[in-house]
Amino acid sequence: MNQPTYPKNTWYVAAMAEEVAGSKPLGRQVCGESIAFYRSHKNEIAAVLDFCPHRGAALSLGYVEDGLLVCGYHGLKMGADGKTKEMPLQRVKGFPCMKSYAVEERYGFIWVWPGDQSLADKALIPHLEWAVNPEWAYGGGLYHINCDYRLMIDNLMDLTHETYVHASSIGQKEIDESPVSTVVQGEQVLTTRYMDNIMAPPFWKAALRGNGLADEVPVDRWQICRFTPPSHVMIDVGVAHAGNGGFDAPADKKASSTVVDFITPETETSIWYFWGMARNFKPDDQALTETIREGQGNIFAEDLEVLERQQQNLLAFPDYPLLKLDIDAGGVQSRRIIDRIIAKENAANVSVQTIAPLQTVSF
Amino acid sequence: MNQPTYPKNTWYVAAMAEEVAGSKPLGRQVCGESIAFYRSHKNEIAAVLDFCPHRGAALSLGYVEDGLLVCGYHGLKMGADGKTKEMPLQRVKGFPCMKSYAVEERYGFIWVWPGDQSLADKALIPHLEWAVNPEWAYGGGLYHINCDYRLMIDNLMDLTHETYVHASSIGQKEIDESPVSTVVQGEQVLTTRYMDNIMAPPFWKAALRGNGLADEVPVDRWQICRFTPPSHVMIDVGVAHAGNGGFDAPADKKASSTVVDFITPETETSIWYFWGMARNFKPDDQALTETIREGQGNIFAEDLEVLERQQQNLLAFPDYPLLKLDIDAGGVQSRRIIDRIIAKENAANVSVQTIAPLQTVSF
Amino acid sequence: MNQPTYPKNTWYVAAMAEEVAGSKPLGRQVCGESIAFYRSHKNEIAAVLDFCPHRGAALSLGYVEDGLLVCGYHGLKMGADGKTKEMPLQRVKGFPCMKSYAVEERYGFIWVWPGDQSLADKALIPHLEWAVNPEWAYGGGLYHINCDYRLMIDNLMDLTHETYVHASSIGQKEIDESPVSTVVQGEQVLTTRYMDNIMAPPFWKAALRGNGLADEVPVDRWQICRFTPPSHVMIDVGVAHAGNGGFDAPADKKASSTVVDFITPETETSIWYFWGMARNFKPDDQALTETIREGQGNIFAEDLEVLERQQQNLLAFPDYPLLKLDIDAGGVQSRRIIDRIIAKENAANVSVQTIAPLQTVSF
Repeated sequence: MNQPTYPKNTWYVAAMAEEVAGSKPLGRQVCGESIAFYRSHKNEIAAVLDFCPHRGAALSLGYVEDGLLVCGYHGLKMGADGKTKEMPLQRVKGFPCMKSYAVEERYGFIWVWPGDQSLADKALIPHLEWAVNPEWAYGGGLYHINCDYRLMIDNLMDLTHETYVHASSIGQKEIDESPVSTVVQGEQVLTTRYMDNIMAPPFWKAALRGNGLADEVPVDRWQICRFTPPSHVMIDVGVAHAGNGGFDAPADKKASSTVVDFITPETETSIWYFWGMARNFKPDDQALTETIREGQGNIFAEDLEVLERQQQNLLAFPDYPLLKLDIDAGGVQSRRIIDRIIAKENAANVSVQTIAPLQTVSF
Repeated sequence: MNQPTYPKNTWYVAAMAEEVAGSKPLGRQVCGESIAFYRSHKNEIAAVLDFCPHRGAALSLGYVEDGLLVCGYHGLKMGADGKTKEMPLQRVKGFPCMKSYAVEERYGFIWVWPGDQSLADKALIPHLEWAVNPEWAYGGGLYHINCDYRLMIDNLMDLTHETYVHASSIGQKEIDESPVSTVVQGEQVLTTRYMDNIMAPPFWKAALRGNGLADEVPVDRWQICRFTPPSHVMIDVGVAHAGNGGFDAPADKKASSTVVDFITPETETSIWYFWGMARNFKPDDQALTETIREGQGNIFAEDLEVLERQQQNLLAFPDYPLLKLDIDAGGVQSRRIIDRIIAKENAANVSVQTIAPLQTVSF
Repeated sequence: MNQPTYPKNTWYVAAMAEEVAGSKPLGRQVCGESIAFYRSHKNEIAAVLDFCPHRGAALSLGYVEDGLLVCGYHGLKMGADGKTKEMPLQRVKGFPCMKSYAVEERYGFIWVWPGDQSLADKALIPHLEWAVNPEWAYGGGLYHINCDYRLMIDNLMDLTHETYVHASSIGQKEIDESPVSTVVQGEQVLTTRYMDNIMAPPFWKAALRGNGLADEVPVDRWQICRFTPPSHVMIDVGVAHAGNGGFDAPADKKASSTVVDFITPETETSIWYFWGMARNFKPDDQALTETIREGQGNIFAEDLEVLERQQQNLLAFPDYPLLKLDIDAGGVQSRRIIDRIIAKENAANVSVQTIAPLQTVSF
C-alpha cells in the first residue's frame, strides 16, 4: 500500500457529539479506517474497528447493552478495548483482539486517533477557548465532500474565493483587491487580509444590525486564517466601524466571530467537513445561533460543487503543475507542514496492523 | 479467468415461474451467464445466451413469436437450441450456434443448468415434496442482495442470528442459549437446535393462534436446517405445546412449516435469493398464505443490510481469518462440500466455451 | 494512452446553439476533452479547456464578463485563446497558455475541432442546405447515450430496425422484406431501400394528412441513408402516392423530409446524439415543427435501451465476431472509412499536448 496522503498519528474530529447517542452506534470511515463509535459505560465514548471478529459483520449495525457493543448478527459483545467480552454459549478468551481507537469527547466533538495507538496522547488535542468559555457560543454542521482534504485547506487559507463563490453574502470586490500576507510560525500558518474603510457585504451588515450597530457606515474588515495540523483552520473574521482599530476595536464597535473548520479525511479523495461559527457576543441567544448556522450552512454549501469538480479535474490531469500565487501561500505553506509530518511518520516506519489477531480459534 | 467460487454444473433456481409470462422474455444473470428466458411452443420454457448472434443486442429486450425469440433490434429469430431459425431476407444456416441452456419448469420455479450443457440431467433436480403434495401450501418471494452466496448459506445454517436480526418476530433469547448440533450426511448438512418448554415469540404465537391453538402456554420449539448442494437450505421450524413430542407432536398440538431458500449466484458477490415458506396446515387458505408471505418478506428483508455490509467488510479485509465456532459449523461444513464439488469440476477440466460459434459468416 | 476509437482532427457538433446562452458557460466533454464553451465578445462562441490554469477549477462553473470567462473560484479571467487575461492583484503574463479549441457557430449548432488545433479549417464544416434555405424548417433535440458512437452509426445505416424498435410509428413489415443496396462514393456511404406500392405506417400517414394528402392509398416509400465522416448520418425519407416517381415525385404528391443525425463521441463508450428532422414543406408552420420534434423524440428514445444493452453485451464478449450481413453493409463500410481516417491520424503522429503550459510560475 502506498503511504497515505494524510497524517494518521494525530487527532481528527470524527463526529459531532450528538451524532453518537443512546444505544445506537455510529459507523464512520476516518483516514481509511472503518470505525464503530458508541457510548460505553457512563456514556463514555468508545471506538473500535467496525468489523466483528466472529464473521466480519459491521458492528455499527448493532446496539449497545450494558456498556458493550453487541454485534447485530450473532450477539458477540465487544469491549472498548477491542476484546470480545461475551458471546452466547461461547468461551471468548481466545478470540482475536481487534483494533480499538483512542477516542475522546471534548468541546462537543468526538476526536479520534486513527494511526498507531501507542502514540495517542490526549494532551495533543488542541485547546479551543471558544468551546469552554461561557462568553462564546457555537453553532455548526457537517458536510460530506468528494475531494482531497487539502483542497479544502487551500480553499479556507485563501478567502479570495468569497468574492466569487459567495458573491451574494460575504463576497465583495474589495477582498481580491486587497493583498494577503502569509507567515509561518512553527507548525502554524497565518494568512491575513485587512480591508479598511469599505462598506460591509450583506452577511456582515446583518451581523452589525444583529449586534445593535449601524450597518450603512464604512467599516474595517479583517480575515485572519490560522492553519494548524493536521487540517484545522480557524478564521477570525469581522468588521468594525471604521477607524476604531479593526480587529482590536472595542466590543461595542464591531461584529466578529471565528469560523471553525475541522477537515477530516475519509479516504484520499473524500472528507467529512465540520464547519461552524463561534462568536463572543450574545452567547445566550440561541435563536441567533440557529440563524447564523443556517446562513453559514447555505454559504458553505456553495463550495461543494466547486471542490468536487476541481478534484475531478485534478484526477484527469494529475501532472499539471498548479500555480502557486501569493494568494495560495497559505495553502502551500500548510501543505509543506503536512508533508513534513507525513515524512516523519514514514521515517518512524511505525508498523500499524489494521487487524492484529492475537490468535485464531480453529474449528 | 479464475475458477468461479460456485459450482456451475448443477441446477439453480433462476426465476419464479410467473416471472416469465406471455411473449415477454426475462433477462437474468446466473453464475455470470447472461441468459434470456422465454416461453417457447406450448408455453415451454427455453433459455439462451442473452446475446443476438447478429450484432450482440440483448435478446431479452425482444419478444416471442410462434415459439421463437425475436430479437428486438433487427428481427433475427432465435430457437431454444441457440440456432437462428429465420431472419428477414437472410439465409441463416451459417449463423453461429449460440449457447443455450438446459432449463426446466418444476415446482413453480424455473431451473437452469449454467455450466457444461452435456452434463445437464433433469433427474438431478431435487424432489420437493411440499411442492407436489396437496396437503401443503407455499408462498414466497425474491430478493436481490449484493453478497457472496455463501454468506447467505452461513446465515441460514446458523439461526442464532434470529435473536438479533429478527428480535421482534422470530428472535428470542432462548435461541442463543441453546446449543446447536451439526451432522454431515453425505452431501447434506444438518444443523439442529431444540428449545424445550419456552414461551413462543410473536411470529409463532400468531401461528399457534392461526392454527386454533393456545399461544400463552409453554412450547417446545425446533429448528432443523438442511443444506444440499449447490446452495439450497430447507429449514423445518415450528412450536408444539410442551411435552407432546415437539417436532413429532400430532398436528393438533403444533404449528410448523418449512422455510424454503434457494440461493442463486448472480456474480461472485451478488445473489438472487428465492425465499418462501411451505406449510402443511390449512393449505387452501390463500389469505393465510399471503399473510405469512408478507410477514416473512418483512423479516427476511432485515438480513439484507447485514449481509451487504458484511460483504463489504470482507472485501476490505480479505485475509482476515473468520472464526469458526460451533454455531458456524453448519455453514463451514456446507462450504466444505461446495469446495469439493468445485474441485471436482476443476479436475474434470471441462472446457465450456461461453460463446461457441459454429462458423462465422464473412461479409 | 491507446489511440482513441474516433478521429479527433475533424469537426463535431458539440451543442445546439441555444445551449450556450448569456453569461453562463457550458461544460461538455467531446472526444475525451473537457471543454468550456461560452459566448465571448459580440456573442461570439469560444471554447477552452475546462480547467483553470490557477488551481484546476472547472471554468464552466464560472461566468462571462466583458467577453472573458471568469473562473468562479478565484476570479481568473480566461480569454478565448487559452491565455489568462487578468486576475485580481496578479501579473498574469507568465501564466501557462491552456488549450483552446477551434469552434464555430453554424446552422444552429456549435461545432468544435477537438484534436490538433493547427489543422482546424472551417472550410471543412459540411454544407447543410436545409439549414440555410428558407424553404426548409428544422426541429431536433439531444440525447446522451452510453454506447460507442459507431453503434449509433450502425443503427442509422440499417433502418431494418425500424420494424422492431419503432413498430408502432415508422416500422412496418415491408421494410425488412425489401433488400437494401449500399454503395461507397469516396468518403461517403449510401444505403438505400425502396418499398413500392405499400400502405404507409402511422407516422407517414400523419405526414401525408399534415401535407393535405390522402393517406389510405398505396404509396412508394424510400430511405436513403448517407454517412459522411466523422459520424454524420443524413437520411432522406418519405412516401409518395404510388406511381408518381417516389423520391422524385412532385411536391404535391409526397411527404418527405431529411432525418439529421450528428453523433458526437463523449468518451469511447458514450455519445452526445443530436437528432432532428428537416422538411421542405410548410417551413413556417412552427406548430408542425414542434409536433414532429415531439414525435421523433419519442421514437428515437426507443433506441436508447437497445444501444446501451448492446454496448454492455459487446464489452462482456469483446472477441465475438459480429455478423456482417447485407443489411449491415452501410455500417460496415462507414467503419472502414473511419478506420482509414484514424490510421491516417496515427501515421501523421501529430503530437497533441492536452495541456501545454508555456511556462510555470514558481512560488
